[in-house]
Amino acid sequence: MADPQAVIPTKTDARRHHDPSVRGFASDNYAGVHPEVLAAVALANDGHQVAYGEDAYTEHLQRVMHSHFGSSAEAFPVFNGTGANVTALQALTDRWGAVICAETAHINVDEGGAPERMGGLKLLTVPTPDGKLTPELIDRQAWGWEDEHRAMPQVVSLAQNTELGTVYTPDEIRAIVEHAHARNMKVHLDGARIANAAASLNVPMRAFTNAVGVDVISYGGTKNGMMFGEAVVVLNPDAVSHMKHLRKLSMQLASKMRFVSVQLEALLTKDLWLRNARHANAMAQRLADGVRGVDGVEILYPVQANAVFARLPHDVSVRLQKRFRFYFWDEAAGDVRWMCSFDTTEDDVDAFLQALKEEMTR
Amino acid sequence: MADPQAVIPTKTDARRHHDPSVRGFASDNYAGVHPEVLAAVALANDGHQVAYGEDAYTEHLQRVMHSHFGSSAEAFPVFNGTGANVTALQALTDRWGAVICAETAHINVDEGGAPERMGGLKLLTVPTPDGKLTPELIDRQAWGWEDEHRAMPQVVSLAQNTELGTVYTPDEIRAIVEHAHARNMKVHLDGARIANAAASLNVPMRAFTNAVGVDVISYGGTKNGMMFGEAVVVLNPDAVSHMKHLRKLSMQLASKMRFVSVQLEALLTKDLWLRNARHANAMAQRLADGVRGVDGVEILYPVQANAVFARLPHDVSVRLQKRFRFYFWDEAAGDVRWMCSFDTTEDDVDAFLQALKEEMTR
Amino acid sequence: MADPQAVIPTKTDARRHHDPSVRGFASDNYAGVHPEVLAAVALANDGHQVAYGEDAYTEHLQRVMHSHFGSSAEAFPVFNGTGANVTALQALTDRWGAVICAETAHINVDEGGAPERMGGLKLLTVPTPDGKLTPELIDRQAWGWEDEHRAMPQVVSLAQNTELGTVYTPDEIRAIVEHAHARNMKVHLDGARIANAAASLNVPMRAFTNAVGVDVISYGGTKNGMMFGEAVVVLNPDAVSHMKHLRKLSMQLASKMRFVSVQLEALLTKDLWLRNARHANAMAQRLADGVRGVDGVEILYPVQANAVFARLPHDVSVRLQKRFRFYFWDEAAGDVRWMCSFDTTEDDVDAFLQALKEEMTR
Amino acid sequence: MADPQAVIPTKTDARRHHDPSVRGFASDNYAGVHPEVLAAVALANDGHQVAYGEDAYTEHLQRVMHSHFGSSAEAFPVFNGTGANVTALQALTDRWGAVICAETAHINVDEGGAPERMGGLKLLTVPTPDGKLTPELIDRQAWGWEDEHRAMPQVVSLAQNTELGTVYTPDEIRAIVEHAHARNMKVHLDGARIANAAASLNVPMRAFTNAVGVDVISYGGTKNGMMFGEAVVVLNPDAVSHMKHLRKLSMQLASKMRFVSVQLEALLTKDLWLRNARHANAMAQRLADGVRGVDGVEILYPVQANAVFARLPHDVSVRLQKRFRFYFWDEAAGDVRWMCSFDTTEDDVDAFLQALKEEMTR
Repeated sequence: MADPQAVIPTKTDARRHHDPSVRGFASDNYAGVHPEVLAAVALANDGHQVAYGEDAYTEHLQRVMHSHFGSSAEAFPVFNGTGANVTALQALTDRWGAVICAETAHINVDEGGAPERMGGLKLLTVPTPDGKLTPELIDRQAWGWEDEHRAMPQVVSLAQNTELGTVYTPDEIRAIVEHAHARNMKVHLDGARIANAAASLNVPMRAFTNAVGVDVISYGGTKNGMMFGEAVVVLNPDAVSHMKHLRKLSMQLASKMRFVSVQLEALLTKDLWLRNARHANAMAQRLADGVRGVDGVEILYPVQANAVFARLPHDVSVRLQKRFRFYFWDEAAGDVRWMCSFDTTEDDVDAFLQALKEEMTR
Repeated sequence: MADPQAVIPTKTDARRHHDPSVRGFASDNYAGVHPEVLAAVALANDGHQVAYGEDAYTEHLQRVMHSHFGSSAEAFPVFNGTGANVTALQALTDRWGAVICAETAHINVDEGGAPERMGGLKLLTVPTPDGKLTPELIDRQAWGWEDEHRAMPQVVSLAQNTELGTVYTPDEIRAIVEHAHARNMKVHLDGARIANAAASLNVPMRAFTNAVGVDVISYGGTKNGMMFGEAVVVLNPDAVSHMKHLRKLSMQLASKMRFVSVQLEALLTKDLWLRNARHANAMAQRLADGVRGVDGVEILYPVQANAVFARLPHDVSVRLQKRFRFYFWDEAAGDVRWMCSFDTTEDDVDAFLQALKEEMTR
Repeated sequence: MADPQAVIPTKTDARRHHDPSVRGFASDNYAGVHPEVLAAVALANDGHQVAYGEDAYTEHLQRVMHSHFGSSAEAFPVFNGTGANVTALQALTDRWGAVICAETAHINVDEGGAPERMGGLKLLTVPTPDGKLTPELIDRQAWGWEDEHRAMPQVVSLAQNTELGTVYTPDEIRAIVEHAHARNMKVHLDGARIANAAASLNVPMRAFTNAVGVDVISYGGTKNGMMFGEAVVVLNPDAVSHMKHLRKLSMQLASKMRFVSVQLEALLTKDLWLRNARHANAMAQRLADGVRGVDGVEILYPVQANAVFARLPHDVSVRLQKRFRFYFWDEAAGDVRWMCSFDTTEDDVDAFLQALKEEMTR
Repeated sequence: MADPQAVIPTKTDARRHHDPSVRGFASDNYAGVHPEVLAAVALANDGHQVAYGEDAYTEHLQRVMHSHFGSSAEAFPVFNGTGANVTALQALTDRWGAVICAETAHINVDEGGAPERMGGLKLLTVPTPDGKLTPELIDRQAWGWEDEHRAMPQVVSLAQNTELGTVYTPDEIRAIVEHAHARNMKVHLDGARIANAAASLNVPMRAFTNAVGVDVISYGGTKNGMMFGEAVVVLNPDAVSHMKHLRKLSMQLASKMRFVSVQLEALLTKDLWLRNARHANAMAQRLADGVRGVDGVEILYPVQANAVFARLPHDVSVRLQKRFRFYFWDEAAGDVRWMCSFDTTEDDVDAFLQALKEEMTR
């Protein structure tokens, strides 16, 4: 066996193709893996473990998930967020079912049509002011269950936090769930950044999921410090069936699943998930606070998680992008998105703010 | 940041849920990650890299792939083998296309119907004596291109090595490719164990892929020592289009792709892929050699890679399974499959043979 | 053989389950078959004709279509409008393609999710004031062709006339086509009521289809007086491929196709298509003219074809529905739709107007 | 309104594109519409009927179906056989379900991949000697329900009669149903030629359907003398759900459904279905009897319905095809299929036999 010390690169390792000191504000998945997560991966290595999910780490993960989401929760690790969402939504719908979601939802705008193509799912979208659904907004699409000419609304899918960095209160989600359940619809929560939402609200994740009746979560690990991996977490076992079959046919079944499960365990056993999320959120607050002092830059939505959406002159953004990587959100409008991650430092934020000020006044 | 030394567990680390000294013969994906691969993952960590494949490691991977498969090869890392196959086969077919494959092919029997459900693909299957297609066998399904009542045969998909542990010679694949191309069909090679095939033939992988005209490979990394990850490797750029879109909509686009690419790089830059494959093959040979000396145990197919298929009394298998994990292949017939992996040791094989002999004579 | 006279029922035939004198304003597909169409069906009967479209009537239909849509037009008869649309849109898209359409489009709101489920199609919808797309409206969704996270806009689908009874001018469609083609997008025209649009504009159908560059039409026959049957009419042969295969796999291939084709021939050879459409449109104008004289009833959109959308007190509608069948369009708003058909009579309209006046003043 | 007399063409009507005296042996859907069916269509015409199945003819059809299949039967008229099969099989499967069928089944070889592409259905095929499944043959695929890597066998689909013109006895179907139900699988009967099977067995259709536990039928009307149209007939209401939604999203919902339903009524109210089937079967017997006297022509399967499969010298077939239209079944083997229809005459058969003898001795 090779020397396990080889696993730890030096900062200047010549085999590296990248400069590990460079960070930007483009996306929380530009970051790498948290060291504690990587350590856990090594811990799960060596020897043989049953493939496809019958390993000791996936078994243990269930207990970890119970501590967060109650004893009826069951986690089905998958590869990525799109996979989690499409698997979960297939599980919650009949062939004739449809999914109500915000027009800005990741499942609608950022998954290459995977829900429609792979899942055969019809999305019934609703415009929202801030990415958040409400019972009233849901009602724009929640009708016509008996009408065979209409794809039947069977699921409300909300994201916590939303694509626009806003966070639902537990009561807001409870109201949506009650509204949906009263109409025989299930509720799916896209939790690609669920940890950031919990950190923002300063409540346990259960407070806005199983405690308020959410049926299934797409639990996000990658943006919270994992290398890869998410999980479909079923909170209401009566809402779904044959998840293992669905995961497999959805091409989301990892053979060496222990390495997904142990990463989730590393995040969730103690407080790493929360530390990482709090840190990213705090960096976004620091960034937003700094931006508020810059004339000509407008913050677009409440900064409640790790994203800052801002509007500024297009040429400033273009110049700034040469110094720090980030994306336009709506280029015509001059809107940009700045994301903070678990590894964003105060110095990163301050340097970025300094650069922003320089470019605004150039 | 956490202490990076934490990444190296001691053998008796209390946080471990498994005994790393236990190994069996159930599957080559029961094994973990080769230490050099894990080291490479750590090497790619830290700092920010563009997500979704625009990172330095994925870029570098292209050059590594060129060294194996020629300068027109392009690799599209994906999560798993089913994902690689379904993405590749969608790329090679029109909506009206179908795929000719062996009845025993993994895509037909072991992917939960993902090709049909996710890809809308019709598989035109052919019974084979040993898992290997031939031009004659292909012709049982290669007809009716003008007949709209028939899903149009557009691809021949073969596996190298096959599900039955047999290996095509380069000439055999060349004959299939020429036969297919002459009928306007493309050739896909499911290379979940491509390294084992190359080791078995003692030729470079190109000898039975681009050198003989194969259009697209599902390149297998997981069974060769990776944690997760495969790649669709396009050898004939004219055969496909918009692979990136297809990969995304097939839910196979990793956000932190650097960690897939660097694993492939670790295997392929030097000879780790070959060392691992040779070792697994050698262990299977050792096992087969030993089995041949055991009365009442019949080896079913030529042992050309890392699998041994055998027939033995059912009760013996049942008792043996209590000592070493492995699977029945055809339980009614008494057929079993024994797989060797990169981490199988000579002692493992010998202990297994000893146990087999004991159970046969009990 | 049975007595062919049996084909002509008397008005009081006891075997009838319905009263043939009853007509309403619910839908133009509540009407039956125009007698000339039924006569044509009988004409095509008897003897053997090659099934699945190689019959003399389908062959002849091509020449009829050429007279309307130019010599490069090719018609593929199908069963119904949803089938025509899903077949056409599949033909115009790659697996990664998406379709831009009005939020109110039939394909989006009235086909049970068939485009998504059967075709794997992502619809990119745009709100419109009157059901009509414009280049500016299209641009809300026409972007991101290089972005694999976004289903690629490859088709603009417009309906002539629209779901709201409005009609594009040829210049308006030309502008859309030029806009779409300049962005490498194809144009599909849902012509479920194409005859009504031509009658409204008083131009040949070619004036707003092949003359302005439309690529593929869903040609609507049923609402124009047929028993069943539509056709995908390909105007631009370079835009599609293997239509016959697509039609078959889309479950839209009629075995006894002569009976679809001869109905289309009956409509299109002389001027039956136009007579029927003009009559239906004229009845809608008569209805709209009458409605304009009724206080408290508001007409919602320009009445340009055979539909009248109106807003009136909900209780009036409910009472009126007991006398004449019609549908709410947006029940909460009090919006209703009144459709005229080829068999609507002046007396029908006048009686309906009389009833409306009575209920409004009750 | 046009003169309804126009509905009856004279034999020499100049508007005809075909010679109604020509008949062949290619397929039972080369035939036209039985005059009584056409008369029924005219009967259902005129006036307004609710579209999409809420008409009086579709309502009445239910009672007609009850007389054949019992009072729990419910008929869902659709357009064609592929549509019926794909709708029925979707209804009987979960997203993870698969369908066991004969390798020669129409759903496997003659529907352009529609089950896979449109329904996402995996077919688990079994070779059969004569097109007929048995419990033993089913068991080759009926296993692995708990294995997520395997599409789950949930339905057995058999055809009565089979693609090879053979007919199951009621006891044979009962044995299959009991075998399937004992394994939690449902049974679908593809009845494209169900009337021919009943005529062959000289039993009511219920004797081999609801009486022996079949769950859902694809009821075939087109080959039995209709212009178009089949029906999914649900015998076991507990086996399916939301058929109307499934039919719509499967593009099989006819707007003017009265014209499908009245055709089925015309066949089924009295004995037209049986007369037509008996006649076609008798013509096939006459043909088979004649063929048995021709040296060098071998009949391949028991002639139990309206098909004769034969093997004869290839050049003879080619010459004969110039005189009478028919198809090769397996051209390499010299196998052909001769089909009789409701309108095949004794003279047709005798003339064909005469021609066969002439070509055999040329």
